[in-house]
Amino acid sequence: MSEYTSMELGPLDAWHALDGAAPGKVFLDRELGATNSGVSVNGLAAGQSSPFWHRHARTEEVYVFLGGTGRMALGDEVVEVREGSAVRVAPNTWMAVHADADSATDLRFVCVRAAGVPLAEIGNDAEMSHEPFPWA
Amino acid sequence: MSEYTSMELGPLDAWHALDGAAPGKVFLDRELGATNSGVSVNGLAAGQSSPFWHRHARTEEVYVFLGGTGRMALGDEVVEVREGSAVRVAPNTWMAVHADADSATDLRFVCVRAAGVPLAEIGNDAEMSHEPFPWA
Repeated sequence: MSEYTSMELGPLDAWHALDGAAPGKVFLDRELGATNSGVSVNGLAAGQSSPFWHRHARTEEVYVFLGGTGRMALGDEVVEVREGSAVRVAPNTWMAVHADADSATDLRFVCVRAAGVPLAEIGNDAEMSHEPFPWA
Repeated sequence: MSEYTSMELGPLDAWHALDGAAPGKVFLDRELGATNSGVSVNGLAAGQSSPFWHRHARTEEVYVFLGGTGRMALGDEVVEVREGSAVRVAPNTWMAVHADADSATDLRFVCVRAAGVPLAEIGNDAEMSHEPFPWA
């Protein structure tokens, strides 16, 4: 049996313009029909931040940073991120991402979400917050 | 609550040398303590192939290719892959990856595994095969 789906995102430096509705983020799981994990590719322009904080009630996330420099807020802590940084975020931890103003490229990263059950079973377990970021 | 783990993989072009035991592959889930998804970063030198075919009984995989050029075998089909190619592989589909001999860089990719249950619950559901590759 051979069952797969594929797509072409184009060069990494074009990721910031891939999704008209939510610039800088493409949800591959939706495009590819993945059911057990959520995978997004992201490009955040220099000086930009996530539109809001978010956390998940049951979903664990893993971030892999591929280029650019920036910071990731994790609750009341901030870690610097760059090409090759990898971060696992436990459920219930508030998070946000910021691309340094002097980042040489967009801050590019892959974000993986998984809950230990098919994602459709838990629906949207995200909560948003518009509290100030630590880099504001 | 702020709960996370992080690590530095270093520049993408160093991924091929990150793991002495299995050159070219680092399992971030093991390093970071992720429980619901398996995330590996991979670098396959030009002209090299996966050491074997594999498939999973229950685990769905998503590949995101970040650089280099190559081919992915999916059952009896072969798709060309390059920077920006994304592929979802359903359970029970045999797969293997090959970096073109003239790939300008290592074939770099992130591989995500998820089963819809915590990965520890299903243990190792992989099966290997040493059948010839379509690029042999």
